[in-house]
Amino acid sequence: MKIVNIGLIGFGTIGAGVVKVLKKKTTTLQKKRGIKLQLKYVCDQDISTSRGISVDKKILTTDVEKVLNDPNIDIVIELIGGIHPAKEFILKAIKNKKHVVTANKALLAEHGGEIFDAAAKNNVEIYFEASVGGAIPIIKSLREGLVANQVQNIFGIINGTSNYILSQMSLKGCDFKTALREAQDRGYAEKDPRLDINGMDSAHKIAILTKLCFSKKVDFKNIYVEGIDEVGLQDIKYADDLGYCIKLLAIAKKSGDEFEIRVHPTLLPKKHLLSSVNGVFNAIFINSDFAGDMLLYGQGAGQLPTASAVVSDLLEIANKIDNPNSISFSNMDREVPLRKMRSIDNVETRYYLRFSALDEPGVLSKIAQILGKQNISIYSVIQKGRRQAQAVSIVMMIHEAKEKNLRRALAQLDKLPIIKRKTIAIRVERG
Amino acid sequence: MKIVNIGLIGFGTIGAGVVKVLKKKTTTLQKKRGIKLQLKYVCDQDISTSRGISVDKKILTTDVEKVLNDPNIDIVIELIGGIHPAKEFILKAIKNKKHVVTANKALLAEHGGEIFDAAAKNNVEIYFEASVGGAIPIIKSLREGLVANQVQNIFGIINGTSNYILSQMSLKGCDFKTALREAQDRGYAEKDPRLDINGMDSAHKIAILTKLCFSKKVDFKNIYVEGIDEVGLQDIKYADDLGYCIKLLAIAKKSGDEFEIRVHPTLLPKKHLLSSVNGVFNAIFINSDFAGDMLLYGQGAGQLPTASAVVSDLLEIANKIDNPNSISFSNMDREVPLRKMRSIDNVETRYYLRFSALDEPGVLSKIAQILGKQNISIYSVIQKGRRQAQAVSIVMMIHEAKEKNLRRALAQLDKLPIIKRKTIAIRVERG
Repeated sequence: MKIVNIGLIGFGTIGAGVVKVLKKKTTTLQKKRGIKLQLKYVCDQDISTSRGISVDKKILTTDVEKVLNDPNIDIVIELIGGIHPAKEFILKAIKNKKHVVTANKALLAEHGGEIFDAAAKNNVEIYFEASVGGAIPIIKSLREGLVANQVQNIFGIINGTSNYILSQMSLKGCDFKTALREAQDRGYAEKDPRLDINGMDSAHKIAILTKLCFSKKVDFKNIYVEGIDEVGLQDIKYADDLGYCIKLLAIAKKSGDEFEIRVHPTLLPKKHLLSSVNGVFNAIFINSDFAGDMLLYGQGAGQLPTASAVVSDLLEIANKIDNPNSISFSNMDREVPLRKMRSIDNVETRYYLRFSALDEPGVLSKIAQILGKQNISIYSVIQKGRRQAQAVSIVMMIHEAKEKNLRRALAQLDKLPIIKRKTIAIRVERG
Repeated sequence: MKIVNIGLIGFGTIGAGVVKVLKKKTTTLQKKRGIKLQLKYVCDQDISTSRGISVDKKILTTDVEKVLNDPNIDIVIELIGGIHPAKEFILKAIKNKKHVVTANKALLAEHGGEIFDAAAKNNVEIYFEASVGGAIPIIKSLREGLVANQVQNIFGIINGTSNYILSQMSLKGCDFKTALREAQDRGYAEKDPRLDINGMDSAHKIAILTKLCFSKKVDFKNIYVEGIDEVGLQDIKYADDLGYCIKLLAIAKKSGDEFEIRVHPTLLPKKHLLSSVNGVFNAIFINSDFAGDMLLYGQGAGQLPTASAVVSDLLEIANKIDNPNSISFSNMDREVPLRKMRSIDNVETRYYLRFSALDEPGVLSKIAQILGKQNISIYSVIQKGRRQAQAVSIVMMIHEAKEKNLRRALAQLDKLPIIKRKTIAIRVERG
């Protein structure tokens, strides 16, 4: 029987989930896989508050150095999140030849290169299934199931909070604030929900997926990110009339010699599978050269789904211990960025536009003229309502346009006296 | 650089796909994973017909013994399908200490026990990702991603041909024969499409999934199987009116102390994700204790998707070679069947019923009376059309009923003079 000693740093929601899953499943896993996962430390600044699970007092500690320096610890689980001091803890664990399991998407997205370099140098593994898509085995599927494939594009709904908000707005017809409050009441959104709503959480995750799919370093700062806070209920309704859903998508795709990475609210045809992904669920769509289209759907967050992914990582690493000829995955993220990341200015997409314009003769012609000058051609127009001397909504779908041309046109348009409010522009993907 | 020698038996569509994928990706895989997959033999009875790919003549052979007995061969890929002689080839490969990769669902479903016993005794691995769901990494996800979970139920669309036929009937309004002919014209159905249409192919696959999810031996003969050949266009239309799709589902679930395994056409609410799975695509829905609901969707068949799964298995096994302390998966299917398989007689489901009855006063009351005597209660009734002295359709949704009670009721009903044709009964799952 192989015994693997584990030190857990971070006894929050997910940490407590890991303790629960290990408690319930250690014996089964021993029987099924011949490996005993032994939790030797549970470390947190606060070890007195109850987490709804009984833990042997002897393994509770506030002293992180004890965990990082104990020569018997094989694997350190880092679940404190954020950049500091998580980064320092992980680097020290690596230096002390410990394997690491983490769910820390921000750290891997922003400092992954440094961490994977250190891991490769010290011949240890970094596993991070729980960092993207909760229980969904997306990292494993990309690394192993699709190993023979080159991914062409990958996109999906990878933030449960914002998907919950958009789903509620769409299904219940409530506004953004009401939906957010409900998400907070149900524990789906943090008190400070900014990282979820402003798209940064999705950006961290798509950065990690991009590294895996394209074996490239990703300069996180260059990812284009837009949140959902400007999506209005009326846009959701107009999109619905046009046969679309609005979803916060994270997108990475090859496009000619370059690749695009972006996060933004997106109109998606209702018949697309991702349009049926509601509530806090996550789903990731992958297109690759041999396997074609694939979609993985599941619980993107939550205590037990995330803990389930952490424990699957523990077993993976446990299996590598004493198997010196195993493939190492910690050389990922160390390759040169051969393919250039396309600036958002040069990205071409279709667009949904909503103008708040005066209901006067000639308005549409003025809008069309300015768009036309920027090489933007209109696919369809609907005017919603007629109210003299007041602004009405003009909803327009445009053909593929270069981002910078559209911005130039909108800057001009929004200065016209006939345009009463900032024009809403949401990208459209055909999927 | 680790070099792994491979012998391929079966140079049909999938075999040629494996050759193509290896040809295109060997160098990349070498670079990415440090393993060289070397194809040493391609064996088939016919090695002269072109497969659209050039193969070094020196590796082509008609002599299967050469492949099975060559001490340098590490992995044998079996892609001839069917029970014999595939079984004999695989057992001989195992006896000669070779690992095996196979896509042979019939063999694993019907004789898996014998094969896994032999593999465990000889300390070699059997991998079979390509046997279920083509490119979808379902086997890996159940074994590894969900390793900490107990699956409660798993069900899905795992036969592309029948899903294509049902999708065409539903989307185009054509009848079964027309849809089948189209599937054959497009190469989605074999000339002899019986195994696909009669549900046996799905039964083979759900038997394999059941073994993985419940670690149990499955007596294949006891799986209840119904095909799609009796699904009429009008039933698809009536189901649509009621808010349902009809899909051929393979289902395995825990139910009290027993478990149910069955394959049959099923009414599924349109809002269920599986209802959006159209054409030749496959999708598998899994519910487990920690990870909750999950769905994996992708190409369930086809040359390159299936080959992509075979190559991922090759790399998995290649990684185990020279790592004597790796977890072996070949002890699966060797446990005792602790949980009893429920006889279809005792399964309880909701039902869609379509009676062809005379349009006479009192007909509904007679039907309701006979159902009532069997403890079957009606949820809703719609009578379609009124035609005196001719049979009309009475469409009924009933609450959960025990299968044997329903059969007893239908046997009585179908003998009544007011019932003009055999009553159509299709199970309903809420998902």
